[in-house]
Amino acid sequence: MSIQPKAKTLKTFNDPIYGFITIEDALIFKIIEHPYFQRLRRITQLGLTNLVYGGANHSRFQHTMGAMNLMKQAIATLRTKGFEITEEEERASKLAILMHDIGHGPFSHALENTIVRGVHHEAISLQIMHDLNAEFDGALSLAIQIYEGTYHVKFLHQLVSSQLDTDRLDYLKRDSFFTGVSEGVISSERIIKMLTIHDGELAVEAKGIYSVEKFLIARRLMYWQVYLHKTVLSAEFLLMNILLRAKELAQSGTEVPAPFALDFFLKQNEMLSLKEHANWLPLFLKLDDVDVMAAIKQWTNHEDHVLRELCNRLLYRRLLKTKELPSPLSVEKQTTYQAQLAEKSGWTVDETRYLFFERSLTNTAYNPESEMIKILFKDGTLRDISEAATIFRFSSLAVQETKNYLYFPENMSLA
Amino acid sequence: MSIQPKAKTLKTFNDPIYGFITIEDALIFKIIEHPYFQRLRRITQLGLTNLVYGGANHSRFQHTMGAMNLMKQAIATLRTKGFEITEEEERASKLAILMHDIGHGPFSHALENTIVRGVHHEAISLQIMHDLNAEFDGALSLAIQIYEGTYHVKFLHQLVSSQLDTDRLDYLKRDSFFTGVSEGVISSERIIKMLTIHDGELAVEAKGIYSVEKFLIARRLMYWQVYLHKTVLSAEFLLMNILLRAKELAQSGTEVPAPFALDFFLKQNEMLSLKEHANWLPLFLKLDDVDVMAAIKQWTNHEDHVLRELCNRLLYRRLLKTKELPSPLSVEKQTTYQAQLAEKSGWTVDETRYLFFERSLTNTAYNPESEMIKILFKDGTLRDISEAATIFRFSSLAVQETKNYLYFPENMSLA
Amino acid sequence: MSIQPKAKTLKTFNDPIYGFITIEDALIFKIIEHPYFQRLRRITQLGLTNLVYGGANHSRFQHTMGAMNLMKQAIATLRTKGFEITEEEERASKLAILMHDIGHGPFSHALENTIVRGVHHEAISLQIMHDLNAEFDGALSLAIQIYEGTYHVKFLHQLVSSQLDTDRLDYLKRDSFFTGVSEGVISSERIIKMLTIHDGELAVEAKGIYSVEKFLIARRLMYWQVYLHKTVLSAEFLLMNILLRAKELAQSGTEVPAPFALDFFLKQNEMLSLKEHANWLPLFLKLDDVDVMAAIKQWTNHEDHVLRELCNRLLYRRLLKTKELPSPLSVEKQTTYQAQLAEKSGWTVDETRYLFFERSLTNTAYNPESEMIKILFKDGTLRDISEAATIFRFSSLAVQETKNYLYFPENMSLA
Amino acid sequence: MSIQPKAKTLKTFNDPIYGFITIEDALIFKIIEHPYFQRLRRITQLGLTNLVYGGANHSRFQHTMGAMNLMKQAIATLRTKGFEITEEEERASKLAILMHDIGHGPFSHALENTIVRGVHHEAISLQIMHDLNAEFDGALSLAIQIYEGTYHVKFLHQLVSSQLDTDRLDYLKRDSFFTGVSEGVISSERIIKMLTIHDGELAVEAKGIYSVEKFLIARRLMYWQVYLHKTVLSAEFLLMNILLRAKELAQSGTEVPAPFALDFFLKQNEMLSLKEHANWLPLFLKLDDVDVMAAIKQWTNHEDHVLRELCNRLLYRRLLKTKELPSPLSVEKQTTYQAQLAEKSGWTVDETRYLFFERSLTNTAYNPESEMIKILFKDGTLRDISEAATIFRFSSLAVQETKNYLYFPENMSLA
Repeated sequence: MSIQPKAKTLKTFNDPIYGFITIEDALIFKIIEHPYFQRLRRITQLGLTNLVYGGANHSRFQHTMGAMNLMKQAIATLRTKGFEITEEEERASKLAILMHDIGHGPFSHALENTIVRGVHHEAISLQIMHDLNAEFDGALSLAIQIYEGTYHVKFLHQLVSSQLDTDRLDYLKRDSFFTGVSEGVISSERIIKMLTIHDGELAVEAKGIYSVEKFLIARRLMYWQVYLHKTVLSAEFLLMNILLRAKELAQSGTEVPAPFALDFFLKQNEMLSLKEHANWLPLFLKLDDVDVMAAIKQWTNHEDHVLRELCNRLLYRRLLKTKELPSPLSVEKQTTYQAQLAEKSGWTVDETRYLFFERSLTNTAYNPESEMIKILFKDGTLRDISEAATIFRFSSLAVQETKNYLYFPENMSLA
Repeated sequence: MSIQPKAKTLKTFNDPIYGFITIEDALIFKIIEHPYFQRLRRITQLGLTNLVYGGANHSRFQHTMGAMNLMKQAIATLRTKGFEITEEEERASKLAILMHDIGHGPFSHALENTIVRGVHHEAISLQIMHDLNAEFDGALSLAIQIYEGTYHVKFLHQLVSSQLDTDRLDYLKRDSFFTGVSEGVISSERIIKMLTIHDGELAVEAKGIYSVEKFLIARRLMYWQVYLHKTVLSAEFLLMNILLRAKELAQSGTEVPAPFALDFFLKQNEMLSLKEHANWLPLFLKLDDVDVMAAIKQWTNHEDHVLRELCNRLLYRRLLKTKELPSPLSVEKQTTYQAQLAEKSGWTVDETRYLFFERSLTNTAYNPESEMIKILFKDGTLRDISEAATIFRFSSLAVQETKNYLYFPENMSLA
Repeated sequence: MSIQPKAKTLKTFNDPIYGFITIEDALIFKIIEHPYFQRLRRITQLGLTNLVYGGANHSRFQHTMGAMNLMKQAIATLRTKGFEITEEEERASKLAILMHDIGHGPFSHALENTIVRGVHHEAISLQIMHDLNAEFDGALSLAIQIYEGTYHVKFLHQLVSSQLDTDRLDYLKRDSFFTGVSEGVISSERIIKMLTIHDGELAVEAKGIYSVEKFLIARRLMYWQVYLHKTVLSAEFLLMNILLRAKELAQSGTEVPAPFALDFFLKQNEMLSLKEHANWLPLFLKLDDVDVMAAIKQWTNHEDHVLRELCNRLLYRRLLKTKELPSPLSVEKQTTYQAQLAEKSGWTVDETRYLFFERSLTNTAYNPESEMIKILFKDGTLRDISEAATIFRFSSLAVQETKNYLYFPENMSLA
Repeated sequence: MSIQPKAKTLKTFNDPIYGFITIEDALIFKIIEHPYFQRLRRITQLGLTNLVYGGANHSRFQHTMGAMNLMKQAIATLRTKGFEITEEEERASKLAILMHDIGHGPFSHALENTIVRGVHHEAISLQIMHDLNAEFDGALSLAIQIYEGTYHVKFLHQLVSSQLDTDRLDYLKRDSFFTGVSEGVISSERIIKMLTIHDGELAVEAKGIYSVEKFLIARRLMYWQVYLHKTVLSAEFLLMNILLRAKELAQSGTEVPAPFALDFFLKQNEMLSLKEHANWLPLFLKLDDVDVMAAIKQWTNHEDHVLRELCNRLLYRRLLKTKELPSPLSVEKQTTYQAQLAEKSGWTVDETRYLFFERSLTNTAYNPESEMIKILFKDGTLRDISEAATIFRFSSLAVQETKNYLYFPENMSLA
């Protein structure tokens, strides 16, 4: 027995969920230290959810580190079960999950639907990975293949992106922890222990079937209780309206002061194109929650009464009220209400759409059209969870659930 | 402001789930101190589950104290919402839930199906309550009315016994804690906060609907993952077979030494009758897990090879193997296997039924025929959870799930 | 029994520590909704600690709500023990603890030591309370008396501010939860259960003595492991240096763009005076973490190489290295190192003090000169914890612990 | 990449603390399955502590499995830091910790001080290890060397037995979990991450110093709040008195019926000798909590009024009262009290010593005379924790704390 250290943990990160997350690989550590990745520290995982669940201030940085930690556990489990995964494959899988969210914008989704249009955050993530790959002389090539699903070992991609990937296994657990919604608690550890491989694809051992069902149920409940919570969405719609109004003003020539990176996107009046990413990606990589909030703070004194009102509402949490509608509002009713609001507020009818609007929220716990979660039985047969769980009428989870909500100011009476 | 204490917490109990459970009422404390209630300290809540989930050694005493604690919370919540509950009603409701399990026998259910036959533990609980009521000069009358459901304030009974009672709210949480099955974690606190009253009956506010669904799902998962776990049941079937064999021997004249209270029930060859409880109840109230385990330890050296083998298996955890059967075994196969086992073991074919048998396990997460969990909507309408949860196909939870298992010794080959 | 609601919970707040925090009082709810209080949502409780403990993004808003929740528990406990506390006293005590941190500036402490000089955050809190009191027609008068300690019921003040107040009981528990440093976990619930009153002052029942000792130890450990963590401080010193440099530039005529409220304080070159708070308090009440971070982001491109370098370091987490020094650096060594750094960086020697400096950190777990934690024994005697804990050499906790650290850039070699 | 399993987890054990404990080694699994080890399932870790902390029903079996799990983590950590530990050493270390408590008797310590006299449980453990080693053809030799400290790799022994061993790291955490005393929570994971080796001996990295201090403090608090809790001890002294009285009666010719293994020890009137272990060890290995409790239940009807009274008290939790004494009782007072009790009870004065007695309880958090916990500093120096923690007056922990208690029946007045 030698007592000379031969290797060294490069770095240990603290995490309230997993205790410690240790990094042994120098390349992984360099990616974590990179400015592009550090930016994720300033993007909250759940956007404005903290206005309803006050503890939910966790960052996308922390989530991504957690997902990588689960990847490590999953790989260790599969190796224990006798499946070979090379050192290089391990590193690349960790890098893939680490970078999977690197293209997210401020407040996670708000900009995507408003001022950064034409490109999806996943496409941006991929573009950034390519840029980083160039910077690191091709060291990320395998990670990119795994991310894209072009590498021949398919289950590695599935650990990064599938209906039971390490991304979901981390975020459900993490969001549940920080919101305090114990209903969403899942046993990531138990599910990972049950993972196996069949014909090169990820599967779950039969005895893990209840945990998988529980995972799907928990996910659905987190959707309605957190992700699609009507008040959380009230805040997010307000944020989107702020950005839409700001853009409208900026493009009609009104001065709308904003931090320089945000300023660029406000003034941009065409769809972004991935082909021309060189024009805008460097600016996008400067954007984070701070820019948006700083602009909103500044706009609380803006000359435009619409922008000003929306910003003051968000900053001081005077959110719009919500009412669930059994069916969409008729055109007549909508017109009546808008007129009423216009008269009360002194705004134009057109302007009232920033304060009074309908939204439909939709959730499907399990998408039967995308790749299925597979259950491996002891006799070697493989079945989709939707069939395997014969007793539990699984089809119920595949049903799209939709709710209609009306959003309106607190001083409005809806007769 | 006076600084003289006017009241005093009588007693504080430690509990790893709720921290502290405080008792302010002298009568409640007397019931807790009573030998009948102290007996529950020596009855495990989950029988032999600790052979699979090693942490599950918690007692029925502790569970009952926990359920009473939730009753206290539920009453406080309802009062905050403006529903009046008198001091007397509060005390009686706590007493009712405290005594609801007082008629349980050793290992919670094992004896009920073997040697204490003809009376259900709930009927025994009620009889004991009446005896205690006599002892306490009628002070438990209201508690008994609430337990039986004859008191005019119906929701108090529902807090003691319904599909969403404080019994279930405690045991799911507690069993999940001690087994470590995090899938079973429920937010009792959240559900209790959502309780309300409608027309004198217990209901849940509409915004609690997801929590109720989660509660039902968690309950179902706990059934399959813990309560009906095939290895847990292997242990419990072994225990039952031990008691059945001991009874068979005792009644055929073989000496089967046992602690005196157990001895009585082994020798009893008729169904017990509640009417004649004076004959057997005092002995029943002496019985606990210790008697059964002590007897089993003693019987590991018994002259009867069947009893001896069964006891040694249980004591040293050589449980029978299990195999899920797609359909019940044919009579032919059963005969063939028994013959094979008889030859191998030198036992008679009749004796082999103690080591080789089939069992069907059945679970229904939600019994649509019993009283429904009611959801109260903001517009004042009341709907059963099975209707309220329209999107989620609730009917799936009402389906009876059945599994067939074969139990057999490890050295047997099932061709 | 009536079933008509007579009261109503006004609002329920979600909290991952306590589950739910309910507000029944309209005035309390109005204070929570007030813009001054909502501002605390944008001030992190632990400043830049999240650069080391990634989960520590919790806000001062959430902490304050938690402290108020503990106040509620403490009052309920004391009432159970027979001490009378009026409804008005309860409300005022809650308001007092709710507002105790309302004068905090961005990043909790950073500005206080740099650009908002001359007034302490506690004095600012008090001033804001008076302003709010005027706004609410004197409804906060009792709360202010309790906060200041002038109300005759002394223990209420002690629950707000003493060595065992609800402020500390919440923040230790909360900071431990979000950092994941389980060593800091304290049982606030247990301590609160042990609270009592003696001669109008707060005391702890003798059996709670170990919990109090544990609380003091946990507090001390949290200091060294979190609050005074050398890397956390490296980030905070960087932030302070940024603000100092920005102020230096602003006052020497260089343009230093910043959000308007921050701009005011950068240009202010005299000590602030409470007497003239009308000049600056309205601007202070607009300031939060967003302003500071937005400025730093903007300054990453500033013409001044010092400011630019510091801001880039903070934004991308290139913190200064630290080295514990057995004793302060000699003037010679300091000069040598500065010269070396100046040569390497091309900065003037004077400028190097922003990147190279010594700091002494000091912590005392228990301040024997401030008001003591009192232990009440069964025989009625009252002793200070430092005497009561005779066996445990309590004096050790009162000792000031000091550590010297050198901060320097990573590329510097300290021979 | 092959996808054929090459290895297999032999068995997974559920544990509420660590989630899963997996066994990959066949020999380790055989030891776990061995009747000697299965016996530990029926020995509670904390004896009668569950009469005060109702959740504390966990078994010594579960603790030992947990300690083995920490051993696995510790070895993995040390390997990550570059210290070589062979497969064989790993297995032997796990076996050593697994068997370290195998010689414990019922209720962990009660018999040791009463009827199994002359041999310490550690000596019994060692003897059993030797017996098992013979049974397993010498496969446990290395494990025994590590347990005894004769193997040249000293740190492996230290992980099994030292002031910072995996035994303590598990039991503090576990006892804290099951009692609900959150003050005792330690971060075993954090401490294990900080372990290192210096000159072949176990040490802790300097940055782990606060965790070690916290561990020592938590241990001390657990002593006073749980292990030496006056009511817990009241129960344990009662149990000891029961066994002493039963032995006294048995040896004076009175019939004292008991399960056969217990019967042997009751009748044994000489000290046991390790040399002659063949005479008594097989019987000892049959003894567990069940035998003792079954005997006590039986003795509640015994003809001897002393034994009967003591057994009824324990079974129905009518424990003796306690009073802390500033100094030992004078002989006069003792005589007076005994006479008073004798008169009241009708017992002889000699018999009253079973109900009325004094005990001194002593605890030392850190034994400065046994092997020290070593702290390894970055500069390579190694210091004992008592010196390393210079600021914290460590000597306080090494002080023996003693408390005197008087135990007496509830109906006695101590003037």
